Amino acid sequence: MTEQLPPDVIAQLKAMGSAITPELAQSSWALLTPFHEKIGYTAPRIDRDLRYGDHPRHRLDVHSEGGTQAGAPVFLFVHGGGFVRGDKHDPGTPRYDLVGAWAVRHGWVGVTMTYRLAPEHTWPSGAQDVAGAVAWIRENITGYGGDRKKIVVAGNSAGAVHLASFVTGQGGGSLAGVAGAALLSGIYQLRPPAVGEPEHAYYGPDPDPAASTLPGLLDCPVPLLFSVAERDPEFFQRAAAAVVSGWLDRHGTVPDLVWVEGHNHMSTIASLGIDEAALGTALARFIERHTQGADA
Amino acid sequence: MTEQLPPDVIAQLKAMGSAITPELAQSSWALLTPFHEKIGYTAPRIDRDLRYGDHPRHRLDVHSEGGTQAGAPVFLFVHGGGFVRGDKHDPGTPRYDLVGAWAVRHGWVGVTMTYRLAPEHTWPSGAQDVAGAVAWIRENITGYGGDRKKIVVAGNSAGAVHLASFVTGQGGGSLAGVAGAALLSGIYQLRPPAVGEPEHAYYGPDPDPAASTLPGLLDCPVPLLFSVAERDPEFFQRAAAAVVSGWLDRHGTVPDLVWVEGHNHMSTIASLGIDEAALGTALARFIERHTQGADA
Repeated sequence: MTEQLPPDVIAQLKAMGSAITPELAQSSWALLTPFHEKIGYTAPRIDRDLRYGDHPRHRLDVHSEGGTQAGAPVFLFVHGGGFVRGDKHDPGTPRYDLVGAWAVRHGWVGVTMTYRLAPEHTWPSGAQDVAGAVAWIRENITGYGGDRKKIVVAGNSAGAVHLASFVTGQGGGSLAGVAGAALLSGIYQLRPPAVGEPEHAYYGPDPDPAASTLPGLLDCPVPLLFSVAERDPEFFQRAAAAVVSGWLDRHGTVPDLVWVEGHNHMSTIASLGIDEAALGTALARFIERHTQGADA
Repeated sequence: MTEQLPPDVIAQLKAMGSAITPELAQSSWALLTPFHEKIGYTAPRIDRDLRYGDHPRHRLDVHSEGGTQAGAPVFLFVHGGGFVRGDKHDPGTPRYDLVGAWAVRHGWVGVTMTYRLAPEHTWPSGAQDVAGAVAWIRENITGYGGDRKKIVVAGNSAGAVHLASFVTGQGGGSLAGVAGAALLSGIYQLRPPAVGEPEHAYYGPDPDPAASTLPGLLDCPVPLLFSVAERDPEFFQRAAAAVVSGWLDRHGTVPDLVWVEGHNHMSTIASLGIDEAALGTALARFIERHTQGADA
């Protein structure tokens, strides 16, 4: 059977509500960290703080079997944090080594990255940094057992915004080798952001209309998966529904959308490995599907 | 790992296209039946053709461990067939004993039912028959190891239409004990059906506007799961998108929607047991979630 969280843990998650607050982050991770400690959240080998650019935040970690892999799919993760915070690695916690461990457990190479933050760095710096990390992977990942033509990228929250921005070409850079993009609890249409809203620091008060990624996503050459958590705030629910509506108009079909049962904005990425039926099963299927074949 | 079909099998499914034809049914089942034969599609005990009403089509099969179960969730399946054909059991094939076997493998009691067919029997006869089968379950399932308070019903295609009709009260009958309803590739809004379209025989040329279930589903007291197959025809894609849009307007959230990767209108239900990551993992989670607890 697929690894799942006990019903009482899901009930506790649901009871936390949906508002994105430091308390929600703290309580979600406090609840789920013991499950990650139990299964282990570090891959056999982690090469840390490799530089993909000149800025101090241009760093990534590579998670691998430690030499036994070759030609494996590569799973790159772009963290969230409201454009102004977050890191690939919070020492002593599963954030986000767990994502690398999950990738390696599936037989892939995992990569976790940081990127420049607002307000110092604004749109489209996030897209440029994802492009930079992908370029680094293309040039270097063979040495870690990965296949440079089988890169799947996932972004969570602000990370999904940066990833959407990258795959729609806002930051420049090549999509070569990018076999799929998983956009987890992101936003794809911009309103004029009010002071205090997360987008404000990154986009400024009057965003360029071209910063909305939804039109580009509907014609994106990269296969896409979207997810929304059962307990994501309404703004993210509306973003997911807008993707469905836009996709139907453009393609006559529903997009690959995962409804993450029982989880909230913070716990979605924490479900990987410990609650696979929520997101991991569908995400792994997406990754496998788009990296299979001799010349995927 | 979750049971999955090999990539070349999914590729063959996708190559079949989406049009609902006898050939699609034949080729889909021809492709997938060997996988069901390999894992087995008959539960340890099957009690066949139990009568839940007076009509010859008022029959159901109960699939169980054969005496070792008690207080188990009950999973009732309502087949498809364009309102005019189909059966709970096509001897010598996995249709639809596989659904009962899947239920029993998860520790539940499975029930597969037939219902009266159009054009002899029209709206809302299907809803009445689902209500009749559920009433039979409430009265009798304890003797088979099931819990009368933990009934989850799934309907596929026309079966989803009948199930939606039942849970929105169109056919009368009690919802007592119905803990969840899974609507697989259904339609929930009616247009005036043209001659030759599947709905025509069941609804007639000028359906009662009250026959559209979408408004009722948005306020349904029963938890709902919806699914749409990647290769469902556009009409079903539009139905799923309309559910998302309506749900957002009513609840401010996205509904529990499963996008069934790689499958078509015929193969979705055939994925149970042999390709769990497509639908079964999410459907099983839905069933477990809504039948857990002392007095679910």
